[in-house]
Amino acid sequence: MKKLQTIGLNQIRIDGPFWNRYTRSVTEKIIPYQWRVLNDQEPEAEPSHCIRNFRRAAGEEPGGFYGFVFQDTDLAKWLEAVAYSLSSTPDPALEARADEVIDLVGRAQQPDGYLDTYFILEAPESKWRNLQQGHELYTAGHMMEAAAAYYQVTGKDKLLHIMCRCADLICDTFHQPEFAQSIPGHEEVEIGLFKLYQVTGERRYLDMARDFVNRRGQQPDVFVRERNHPKWVSIFADMDPTNTRYHQCHKPVRQQTTAEGHAVRAVYLYCAMADIAGEDGDRELLAACERLYDNITQKRMYLTGGIGSSGYMERFTADYDLPAASGYAESCASIGLALFCRRMAQITREGRYVDTMEQALMNTVLAGISLDGDRFFYVNPLEVWPDNCLEGTSMSHVKPVRQRWFGCACCPPNIARTLASLGEYVCFTDEDSLWLNLYVSGRLHVQLGGVPVEVTVETKFPNQGRVEIHLRPQCPVEGRLALRLPGYVQDYTLTENGAPVSARLERGYLCLDRRWEDTTLVLDMAIPPRFVYSNPRLRSYAGKVAVMKGPLVYCLEQADNGENLAAVWLDTGAGLTETFEPKLLGGVTVLRARGKRLTEEGDAPLYRDAPATMEDTALTLVPYHCWNNRGPGEMTVWVNRL
Amino acid sequence: MKKLQTIGLNQIRIDGPFWNRYTRSVTEKIIPYQWRVLNDQEPEAEPSHCIRNFRRAAGEEPGGFYGFVFQDTDLAKWLEAVAYSLSSTPDPALEARADEVIDLVGRAQQPDGYLDTYFILEAPESKWRNLQQGHELYTAGHMMEAAAAYYQVTGKDKLLHIMCRCADLICDTFHQPEFAQSIPGHEEVEIGLFKLYQVTGERRYLDMARDFVNRRGQQPDVFVRERNHPKWVSIFADMDPTNTRYHQCHKPVRQQTTAEGHAVRAVYLYCAMADIAGEDGDRELLAACERLYDNITQKRMYLTGGIGSSGYMERFTADYDLPAASGYAESCASIGLALFCRRMAQITREGRYVDTMEQALMNTVLAGISLDGDRFFYVNPLEVWPDNCLEGTSMSHVKPVRQRWFGCACCPPNIARTLASLGEYVCFTDEDSLWLNLYVSGRLHVQLGGVPVEVTVETKFPNQGRVEIHLRPQCPVEGRLALRLPGYVQDYTLTENGAPVSARLERGYLCLDRRWEDTTLVLDMAIPPRFVYSNPRLRSYAGKVAVMKGPLVYCLEQADNGENLAAVWLDTGAGLTETFEPKLLGGVTVLRARGKRLTEEGDAPLYRDAPATMEDTALTLVPYHCWNNRGPGEMTVWVNRL
Repeated sequence: MKKLQTIGLNQIRIDGPFWNRYTRSVTEKIIPYQWRVLNDQEPEAEPSHCIRNFRRAAGEEPGGFYGFVFQDTDLAKWLEAVAYSLSSTPDPALEARADEVIDLVGRAQQPDGYLDTYFILEAPESKWRNLQQGHELYTAGHMMEAAAAYYQVTGKDKLLHIMCRCADLICDTFHQPEFAQSIPGHEEVEIGLFKLYQVTGERRYLDMARDFVNRRGQQPDVFVRERNHPKWVSIFADMDPTNTRYHQCHKPVRQQTTAEGHAVRAVYLYCAMADIAGEDGDRELLAACERLYDNITQKRMYLTGGIGSSGYMERFTADYDLPAASGYAESCASIGLALFCRRMAQITREGRYVDTMEQALMNTVLAGISLDGDRFFYVNPLEVWPDNCLEGTSMSHVKPVRQRWFGCACCPPNIARTLASLGEYVCFTDEDSLWLNLYVSGRLHVQLGGVPVEVTVETKFPNQGRVEIHLRPQCPVEGRLALRLPGYVQDYTLTENGAPVSARLERGYLCLDRRWEDTTLVLDMAIPPRFVYSNPRLRSYAGKVAVMKGPLVYCLEQADNGENLAAVWLDTGAGLTETFEPKLLGGVTVLRARGKRLTEEGDAPLYRDAPATMEDTALTLVPYHCWNNRGPGEMTVWVNRL
Repeated sequence: MKKLQTIGLNQIRIDGPFWNRYTRSVTEKIIPYQWRVLNDQEPEAEPSHCIRNFRRAAGEEPGGFYGFVFQDTDLAKWLEAVAYSLSSTPDPALEARADEVIDLVGRAQQPDGYLDTYFILEAPESKWRNLQQGHELYTAGHMMEAAAAYYQVTGKDKLLHIMCRCADLICDTFHQPEFAQSIPGHEEVEIGLFKLYQVTGERRYLDMARDFVNRRGQQPDVFVRERNHPKWVSIFADMDPTNTRYHQCHKPVRQQTTAEGHAVRAVYLYCAMADIAGEDGDRELLAACERLYDNITQKRMYLTGGIGSSGYMERFTADYDLPAASGYAESCASIGLALFCRRMAQITREGRYVDTMEQALMNTVLAGISLDGDRFFYVNPLEVWPDNCLEGTSMSHVKPVRQRWFGCACCPPNIARTLASLGEYVCFTDEDSLWLNLYVSGRLHVQLGGVPVEVTVETKFPNQGRVEIHLRPQCPVEGRLALRLPGYVQDYTLTENGAPVSARLERGYLCLDRRWEDTTLVLDMAIPPRFVYSNPRLRSYAGKVAVMKGPLVYCLEQADNGENLAAVWLDTGAGLTETFEPKLLGGVTVLRARGKRLTEEGDAPLYRDAPATMEDTALTLVPYHCWNNRGPGEMTVWVNRL
């Protein structure tokens, strides 16, 4: 079980309009904007107090803590995004600013390595005493990820040292008898510890991550028991400690078969399970990961790669329960799903994991950010009717327009760090192979058998399926080039300098094992628009139809199709036509269809004896990820079918 | 604007299997069961503490308050139901028990007339200080209704005196300058005060009710301002005082045009508005009631007469927002709607109000209680899939099976008092007219022009539309008999001793103004099963079809039609057949239809390139009000249409 590696972000330069629109936003807009938010300098956003909390924890200004208990993670994700951004766009001023705030983080850290401004400021006696709700380990995990990233990109190890000290404290604490069964209420530290292990080689971090994973579910009442301690403090009153599924501790992780509870917690746990399984060659743990992946993708995932269908508590519910309008599908949960799938693909070399990763990234994650890069969705349902997205109702979690920032600001910086690290999703390598996962224009520098190889990719994907790959090894070299053939591709050609090439299709990758010299391969995949039908058990859209092109889910928007999209029927017999419209939504392929719609009369009664009549209508579909970039309006992915 | 009167419940005896099934339950099951609950003697139910709270408030046992702040209303509704039950089924032991608990209520009352065990026990300094959340006036209103009912049926005035003293205190308090703009956070006291006025003739009770109605919305920030008082105490932390719509104080009631906020609060307010409008001949206020009725019935009411479509906060949302599965449609809200419509019909003599009253009573209210009379729904959606009705999710408000009792037990006793007072809905009178609203087998004793008339009604309604009415005046008398012709009746015959009779149709009533002697009229209404279609703006079921027969909404249940009712299509062209099945569900008319269903394969993927195939299927529909009497299972009212 030899794991493929992601490449360093400085080995890849992504280009081309589709992704650059987003990745540029991270550097040019999100990072500076978030810095102002973290410093309470952005009048439009809710106050964050994040930097102030660190200053107060460092004793540099008086006062207490403000914000969510996990407010420190906003800075962690910012630093991680900064690291990734610096790898592609060096910026000495930004780096200096990051160094400065890292110094502050160091000053806020306590002598024993403890680092969580909420507990330092508000409840120092209660450290580690409410692991269910306290988020200390979650917060530490994100800062560990930032530390690893910042070190990898800049070579600077200050934050790494800070977080190793914190990790050391965690390893010491959570191997004391009193904490020997303890686990984090929100998984993430396992991922962070594993990254520290990867960067430092320190096996105790790996061991601690493995222990947290293996402990989980061994004692389902762990969060009930911690309440008996006199120093336990309540943080989130409505988080029930007996709700073991919510925290993925209903049974030992190796026995889990269904994705349960809070969706982000769940997929972060599965990432850690995959990390450990891949590192240890632990086939039992890997089998659990495969089962959980299967449960998600075969029973509990939206067409958009969204997961977690309950608006209350952001959680998984039941198999086939994927309501279109009231669903949650948090941006962060799809990020976590992409992270999990990436790990599974690295371990198994199976393209299906990349299919799901791409589905989550290119639909839900991208929908989480506006084309201008400065507005965000936290919740990503497949059907929105702005009129009923009302505060103080069951639908208040659904925002009909992207928001500037959130009080609980997990999603925007998570989207930022994901987009900024896109290169880690694009390809994998090992000593003598290169695996191309996502077709993204750009340039890679990798090694095959120790020989540097420059790879240039040119493509208009996802608008077109043609991918041109130029390989330029420094000298001829033996090795494998594996080109992902997505599950949605039925027809393709692969040519080299104009002549057909045959390649073995291995679990979703076209594998070419041979000697490489300078050459140009063209993989031309047919990605016509297509109709997609749901399993009838998906009660919310049984019998309806959706439209996709390649990995992109399409939707109807009010801007193109008028009000009341529930009254529209699509004629699947009449087919779909596609047009690239360079001026629409930053340049998208628009799909057009025929259909009918129920006519509405002005003051018709609610109920009547005769059905409404239907009239012919032309329908226009745009990619789901760029919905709601033309003002508020209705949207639907699933459409009635004639 | 002369208002028709309801008749005393001792003037009517209801018979026949349809209603007796329920009314007998009230006397034989619900009242004794609830008594045990109120006394914490029912091991299956959550502890109520209700009687204990009164004993503690009376100083007869030590200890504090337990339960919801409005726990006293459980006893009030029990006493009201007991009064109604005694009118049809005298029971000296029950009456003695009621007298005894009334004595206890008297002992719990404070010397100044104050009566609310929560504030007496827990926050005596904060009486009337949190009217938004405190429910003192709401609680008093329910006890006033009980007092009026108990006096009217038994002639005993002890509870009436208790509540007049309480009402006197309220009148004094809420005319002091400090409270001169105060209003109850949950309307109900207005109804109670009006009933006390009707029973005692004391105009200050009418004046106080009118003042509460007229004050409402004059100062939208009334609940924000009360928080400034040092004695304000928080009771429901998540009830926002600035949410003026939630409390129907967003504008003066005479200017309100849409039904807003908490549905029960709203319709109780509208009842009070109608009471005042009818009493004062206040056409402006009546016009507001008509507008609010129109908004409800034309934009915001389920086909079942359910209202309030948000599962969170039990409230109205937006026009045309009536989701089938996630809706709320609280039993109490439909009771309130029926009470409002009854008042409007009394004032306006328009049959459309009775249509809505019947629709609410015979669908949502009856669905709230099991055929055995001992299990209850609080929430009444039009589509239920038990698998996703999970605790700790957005769907946790929907119970897939009726419950024994509830911690917040407003609905079961409210259903009990409603069923026990059915006679008040059946007919109205004035000096020389009798208005038959609901066709219910039984016997009435009324007066026309001072002459006693015995009226016997025999019918198998709602299974059959034939109604036989025997009139036996003590001597021949002039007067009007008005027979409601429901809006859903297209064809009917009216005969007297076999010969056709012509009657003038006036706003939904067939009016016969003439001299009456002993006679038998037969109104034979065609009530074939029929298809009903929704306004396409009802996005949850645009293009679907429902089935009704007379006032009854029908539904598909899993027990008859298998799993996954969302995958069923009904062929409206193939018609409906009806069969009375005496052994099914206590004897119901079953409807059968033809249709198709999407076939489900065992482990089919969530999404695929080809639509599922369809197979023919036979469909069976049963009345919505008796769904879920055969174990848990899926149910749907709205069905896809071929």
